[in-house]
Amino acid sequence: MNIVRVDLPDNKGYDIRIGTNLAAEVTAFVASGKYSPRAFVVADTNTVSPYGEAVKAALAKGGLKPELCAVPAGETAKSLRCAEELYNRFADAKLDRKSLVVAVGGGVVGDLAGFVAATYMRGVPFIQVPTTLLAQVDSGVGGKTAINLPLGKNLVGAFYQPDAVFIDLNVLRTLPKREVATGLGEIVKYGVIADADLFAYLEKNYAAVLDLDLASVAHVVERSCAIKAEVVGKDEKEAGLRRILNFGHTVAHAIEQETNYSRYNHGEAVALGSLCAARLSKLEGFIDGGVEERLKGLITKLNLPTVAVGCTLPHMEEEILRDKKTVGGKVNWVLMRKIGEVFVTADVSADNVRTAMQSILP
Amino acid sequence: MNIVRVDLPDNKGYDIRIGTNLAAEVTAFVASGKYSPRAFVVADTNTVSPYGEAVKAALAKGGLKPELCAVPAGETAKSLRCAEELYNRFADAKLDRKSLVVAVGGGVVGDLAGFVAATYMRGVPFIQVPTTLLAQVDSGVGGKTAINLPLGKNLVGAFYQPDAVFIDLNVLRTLPKREVATGLGEIVKYGVIADADLFAYLEKNYAAVLDLDLASVAHVVERSCAIKAEVVGKDEKEAGLRRILNFGHTVAHAIEQETNYSRYNHGEAVALGSLCAARLSKLEGFIDGGVEERLKGLITKLNLPTVAVGCTLPHMEEEILRDKKTVGGKVNWVLMRKIGEVFVTADVSADNVRTAMQSILP
Repeated sequence: MNIVRVDLPDNKGYDIRIGTNLAAEVTAFVASGKYSPRAFVVADTNTVSPYGEAVKAALAKGGLKPELCAVPAGETAKSLRCAEELYNRFADAKLDRKSLVVAVGGGVVGDLAGFVAATYMRGVPFIQVPTTLLAQVDSGVGGKTAINLPLGKNLVGAFYQPDAVFIDLNVLRTLPKREVATGLGEIVKYGVIADADLFAYLEKNYAAVLDLDLASVAHVVERSCAIKAEVVGKDEKEAGLRRILNFGHTVAHAIEQETNYSRYNHGEAVALGSLCAARLSKLEGFIDGGVEERLKGLITKLNLPTVAVGCTLPHMEEEILRDKKTVGGKVNWVLMRKIGEVFVTADVSADNVRTAMQSILP
Repeated sequence: MNIVRVDLPDNKGYDIRIGTNLAAEVTAFVASGKYSPRAFVVADTNTVSPYGEAVKAALAKGGLKPELCAVPAGETAKSLRCAEELYNRFADAKLDRKSLVVAVGGGVVGDLAGFVAATYMRGVPFIQVPTTLLAQVDSGVGGKTAINLPLGKNLVGAFYQPDAVFIDLNVLRTLPKREVATGLGEIVKYGVIADADLFAYLEKNYAAVLDLDLASVAHVVERSCAIKAEVVGKDEKEAGLRRILNFGHTVAHAIEQETNYSRYNHGEAVALGSLCAARLSKLEGFIDGGVEERLKGLITKLNLPTVAVGCTLPHMEEEILRDKKTVGGKVNWVLMRKIGEVFVTADVSADNVRTAMQSILP
């Protein structure tokens, strides 16, 4: 088992444990005695069995009295309706301020259960057990929780740090190939923003990673978590540096919005947004065409899309202004200087933005 | 104008400005340039005119482009439904991460708008303009925000500090007498928990305070805010010391719950809960009957209730176990040592708890 530490102010730091068969670790962690007996495991209809049940059993073995519930699978669960249902379930179960909430699932479950844990009684202890590659490297780490509004994704949420994250790589074995690829969309991003070696590793070992070779997957997951941990540790609430994690994300959110959160997985949308950001970086003169080609080549090898089917320029232009990261009408773009280094700027040509967007449209 | 500073870690400290005709102060504060132009003023149907409109005008004079909306007056507005409506209004108005939200009203408006500000885009800037005596000394200060669930009051919320609080004492002139008394319920509490001089001042000057004599009211509001600021500054998230602010509140919440949040105002329920806590303190041997009589005498002078009409022992006993402050089935009682000093203990006799509860029942 490997541990990635997330260092945060105010004693909010925590460990990400990465390995296989982590149930015993979960049991040992909750047996510390710092939690009230009543606990709640939140899974979705896909993860409740066997993962939700396994975590529930691990908690019970650690002396807790957990309940387990399953929210609907899919992005629609990140709604105020589902949050309300969880609030009422927690109150019914008489959870108190030291009761533990554990999210077992992908990003949707983590974001929803995390937001409810952050706001139930103004915050109860929370543990993440991400069961998709995407959640393991992205939403499961970093303390962002959220639900969606009709007008936009993640418009309601809280910064809320878990007490621990348990990443069990065994769960990836039953993950559909497309779900593996979507996780790789975010992993490529970590290479682009902070780690040229990780990027080169993916270029060389993409086949082993796609085949879920344990050593290869462990390496890229650990590097991804370490990069995110370092960035989040320096800027928990996105005052500055953390923005680099949004590389490709402004356009990704516009793509997800226009295609109704159904055509593309998040990592696929991020791959498309990354290509758009790379093109914009080239048009603005920060990288040459060779760098853009390397990114496009890796994205293609990883079975990620390069064309945003179903998207249009007018919608994309409108949507980026509504993005949470847009302040005072100014869009903050994360642009590349090279593989492994990015920076944030709002000072780009509107023509180049349109041309870059056009480059990923059908 | 007087300023009470709330010192908090992480640069979250802020000033409470207490005075009359504070519109120009509001204008100067928002003209600092740190906010995005779009802003939102949240009032209720009672406070929207003239106070909500006056604050909107003050923001506009400071260079912002504010919208104004009114939620229904009364506790029922502290619901997920009303929060959802505000979220959607904010998204419609294209508020961004630096857009200011201002709550103009009593505790309900402050708690609701504060919670929505805390969670919209994971937190946008927030200012409180409390327009009731209760909100000025209690909910408007300290950074607790909340909404209610069917199963209990304030079960969903966030710790979220405002950028500033503006307490305009002129607004009290149009406040119904009963609303003045309910504020005094909390002010008496500050005397009990931390300030024997404030308690004695109220005993001597209760008539002037009830008549809203400006100097007297200014004194008790400022002392109350200063006490709360000091406690919150030492323990923002209620890890320990802050619990003393809950003197009388566990039973108060049970009373409010059983009487459907309609028979008693919050300060009235707190007065009843305070009497229960005083009796329990006496039964446990920490104060003598004279201290309890002084508290009962002051509460009576201030036209606050001493009998919890419509409440029953079984409901009260059940409800205190559901209280947010109850952890692992243990109720933390705030008990008196004398006027001006309290402490927290879970180690009390169940018989004494029942006897103390019985003492405020019809």
